[in-house]
Amino acid sequence: MAQEGLPIIISAPSGAGKTTLLRSLKERLPALDFSVSHTTRPPRENERDGEDYHFISKADFLKMTDRNEFLEWAKIHDNYYGTTLKNIESTLKKGKDLVLELDVQGVEALRDLKYQGVYIFILPPSLEELKKRLTGRGTEPDSQIRQRLEVGKKEISKSHLYDFAVTNVNVDESVDTILSIIRAEKSRMNRYQPDCPEIRKIIESGNT
Amino acid sequence: MAQEGLPIIISAPSGAGKTTLLRSLKERLPALDFSVSHTTRPPRENERDGEDYHFISKADFLKMTDRNEFLEWAKIHDNYYGTTLKNIESTLKKGKDLVLELDVQGVEALRDLKYQGVYIFILPPSLEELKKRLTGRGTEPDSQIRQRLEVGKKEISKSHLYDFAVTNVNVDESVDTILSIIRAEKSRMNRYQPDCPEIRKIIESGNT
Repeated sequence: MAQEGLPIIISAPSGAGKTTLLRSLKERLPALDFSVSHTTRPPRENERDGEDYHFISKADFLKMTDRNEFLEWAKIHDNYYGTTLKNIESTLKKGKDLVLELDVQGVEALRDLKYQGVYIFILPPSLEELKKRLTGRGTEPDSQIRQRLEVGKKEISKSHLYDFAVTNVNVDESVDTILSIIRAEKSRMNRYQPDCPEIRKIIESGNT
Repeated sequence: MAQEGLPIIISAPSGAGKTTLLRSLKERLPALDFSVSHTTRPPRENERDGEDYHFISKADFLKMTDRNEFLEWAKIHDNYYGTTLKNIESTLKKGKDLVLELDVQGVEALRDLKYQGVYIFILPPSLEELKKRLTGRGTEPDSQIRQRLEVGKKEISKSHLYDFAVTNVNVDESVDTILSIIRAEKSRMNRYQPDCPEIRKIIESGNT
């Protein structure tokens, strides 16, 4: 029996550089699948439907919640965000690892469900840097940036929800660390399946 | 305050290729320290005192146990093996990671002490291969090889004592995996210390 794929849950406060980082991760490990969330918020300028999010209407979103199609969903400000169960389990069963990009609220929901996976939190190098990156976008008024910074701090205070922390100073190094985490977690004893049936049997005999 | 070094405990059944593997690990990550155990067994042909083991007399070994100088020690067949506490704590306090090469019995002792560290078990690709490598040494009679194989199987059945399993098919790949495990475990949330004091404070505020 092949080893199941690993769900890799990644969060970051906005401005920590998650988008660039995930794009680079995708390039460096093409075998990795990425789950695309659904949202009712309007797409930002450079976001593409089906790639960054599935952008849908509130009515459609609520129909999906009624049909229990989400692993987790949350209302943030006035918008809904959700991760569909569909495809996740089948991807993992095929032995493919899957990245789930979730906000802190989504992770709280998964932890409540005791959802098994590897939880990684991306940290900014400093609050100063976080503020700079939020300002750098140049698309939002000061009051909104202040608000985002407060939300960011609150999210960082929830770090304990995660198994691993990666401070994103340099994208390549952060991706190196994430790749190491994935490689290491696939060797974790409680999920490791040696190829050799004989060895597997001996290990299992000791587990009883 | 700098992050403390990580104790990395590595075991393998004899014939799994641990010696070559650790030599390569040392070359690839020179910053890593290696703890050298004490033993009362005579050195094998290519073993060097102070490098592979500290070879000492039984009388001296027993004096050391009396003085509580060992983190753990065990009697295996007719010989004593032990890991001295000295240097371990000071190395770790300096922020240096330290490899402790221990047999399964030593690991059982450390687990009983709830000693915090990263526990890695090196597995042979198959029993066939293990036997081949034991035979390949050509230094021991058949009966002894059979006995070592039985000991090896027993050791493999204790895999659950470890956090990670690495099947040693190819030395370079095994070392890659060990390096990934070390990198990942240094990012583990419960021991991770972000450089930025502000960020650290926010994380700690959430831990209460």
